[in-house]
Amino acid sequence: MRIIVCGMGVVGQSFLKLLLASYTTLYKNYGIKPRVVACVDSKGITYSPTGLDLKKVLAIKEKSGSLLEYAGYKLNSRNYIEEIDAEVFLELTPTNLSNAEPGLSHIISALRSKKNVITVNKGPLALSFSSLIELADYNNVMFRFSGTVGGGTPVLEFAKHCLKGDKITSFTGILNGTTNYILTRMSDGLPFDEALRDAKEKGYAEANPSLDIEGDDAAAKLVIMANWIMGYKVTLRDVDKTGITNINPDEFSRAASSGKSIKLIAKCDKKELYVKPIPISKDDPIYVNGTLNAVTFRSEHSGEQTIIGKGAGGMETASSILRDLIEIKQNMTNYQLN
Amino acid sequence: MRIIVCGMGVVGQSFLKLLLASYTTLYKNYGIKPRVVACVDSKGITYSPTGLDLKKVLAIKEKSGSLLEYAGYKLNSRNYIEEIDAEVFLELTPTNLSNAEPGLSHIISALRSKKNVITVNKGPLALSFSSLIELADYNNVMFRFSGTVGGGTPVLEFAKHCLKGDKITSFTGILNGTTNYILTRMSDGLPFDEALRDAKEKGYAEANPSLDIEGDDAAAKLVIMANWIMGYKVTLRDVDKTGITNINPDEFSRAASSGKSIKLIAKCDKKELYVKPIPISKDDPIYVNGTLNAVTFRSEHSGEQTIIGKGAGGMETASSILRDLIEIKQNMTNYQLN
Repeated sequence: MRIIVCGMGVVGQSFLKLLLASYTTLYKNYGIKPRVVACVDSKGITYSPTGLDLKKVLAIKEKSGSLLEYAGYKLNSRNYIEEIDAEVFLELTPTNLSNAEPGLSHIISALRSKKNVITVNKGPLALSFSSLIELADYNNVMFRFSGTVGGGTPVLEFAKHCLKGDKITSFTGILNGTTNYILTRMSDGLPFDEALRDAKEKGYAEANPSLDIEGDDAAAKLVIMANWIMGYKVTLRDVDKTGITNINPDEFSRAASSGKSIKLIAKCDKKELYVKPIPISKDDPIYVNGTLNAVTFRSEHSGEQTIIGKGAGGMETASSILRDLIEIKQNMTNYQLN
Repeated sequence: MRIIVCGMGVVGQSFLKLLLASYTTLYKNYGIKPRVVACVDSKGITYSPTGLDLKKVLAIKEKSGSLLEYAGYKLNSRNYIEEIDAEVFLELTPTNLSNAEPGLSHIISALRSKKNVITVNKGPLALSFSSLIELADYNNVMFRFSGTVGGGTPVLEFAKHCLKGDKITSFTGILNGTTNYILTRMSDGLPFDEALRDAKEKGYAEANPSLDIEGDDAAAKLVIMANWIMGYKVTLRDVDKTGITNINPDEFSRAASSGKSIKLIAKCDKKELYVKPIPISKDDPIYVNGTLNAVTFRSEHSGEQTIIGKGAGGMETASSILRDLIEIKQNMTNYQLN
């Protein structure tokens, strides 16, 4: 199975490490012999049709080097996506919720050249979900994105595979770990600015935290879930979104007096699609603290189910890419049988 | 798809109602045309090779009648399981953790006569897991039991299908709703006897609650999970089990002083297999109240994930039988392809 890895940040590097660690199991349990034929970072690309030495790639990246050091060549066009022969293209560049680039163009090129695509990049899905699914169908390839929601927690798989014969009618969740950490600290009495500073110090918030604290990251995940799980056709613009920057500290004490606390809640049902800070009972299964994420699904017959896990992390997210890779392999085998 | 339903209690009746409600979807989405050819209760059996009128069966059972009223005949041997032609046998008789009967004999007869089996009966699995799995393999039929753990909450499916490429190394859970309700009430200050009486009044505890309060029900589920998820070969005898009848009320106040409360915890890892009441932090995702169940899985790469849901309920458990039925249908189709 020939793989192109585009994006060499924490998740890309974790994925290479996971491949190295899982090589034997992947072959034994799933018949997969992964061969990474190209790695791409912001400066250039390194390529070998017989498979790159992943340890060498990792050693270069760990000392913050450019892939050009590994007999690479500079990127002068996006044609490499179409020109390189591979079964799977991994799009792991950073999320951009303004115009989804460069991820969107990468994914379109890969699907058009009949490559199966796995991404953890929320931008292209939040802005162009339906057209990407259609493009994948049209080209008869698979498009998977488990890592976009929940990091390593299989939220999308749970909804798709674990409730067969039933119908999910709505879901409610805490979909962003950074804001959940900040709100947990604020619930302890810290003002917003101090809680944010603490989150930055612990590495939970980025230097520019606006995507998280304005609710955009949670809204992007909500859009992906609404499309994939509920079959809606919505984009980021359809979400009624409020961030956590303007919460009055009094709201925490008012909530506490009735056994609740403020959480940034994403909700999807027939009538509503929103992200906003609201009081949640401490007895509610989705009431989780720290950087945890949680989602409750409501379905017609099997009642309510909640799934809780860390919503981020390099190795955790890499494990979701591996799951997608295994699913693609298993479906490819079925395609061949039929 | 011809089905024999053995056991006409709450779950059996809920399953018939669910079939009636899902008839169109089952055909449209999964190509399943269910035909219940026989229903069995403690007094007798009613049979029709072209399919029973489920509304008529339900009407008889709802006025607590015997299936003999529906042109039935008395049970004089267990041969009916082998003699009636069907693809799927549902074993829904009550759990018996002493010798697993009559469920165990039913399942053995059904597997031997090459019928796929679905059960929600914990007894046969808690006492003879490995041999039943082997018998199913030997006869080249499927054996499914999603409803034995978690009721409608897909705990077993989650562990088996949602963490591909990863390896679960341990799990910890609250696996019994009755005891969790009693412990929740005790945590509010009620003595054991009053909490138990309250649970009985609300219908959460049976007249003879010993299977729940002595920890046997949780231990049976633990055994099923340890075998199915972790590949262990253990039975009920291997569980280090303590019930909730001898908890000193002081333990609740001691736990509360450090932000914890006492929960009946089932745990499985390389070293331990136990069910016992221990203090759990209120910040732990498996800390749930009332009749809820919760399980945290720890895996090598994707971290910790918790799944929470109602652990019982007629319709919820029926929905898990439907999931098993769909999986059997899908695998039967694959078998035919190969």
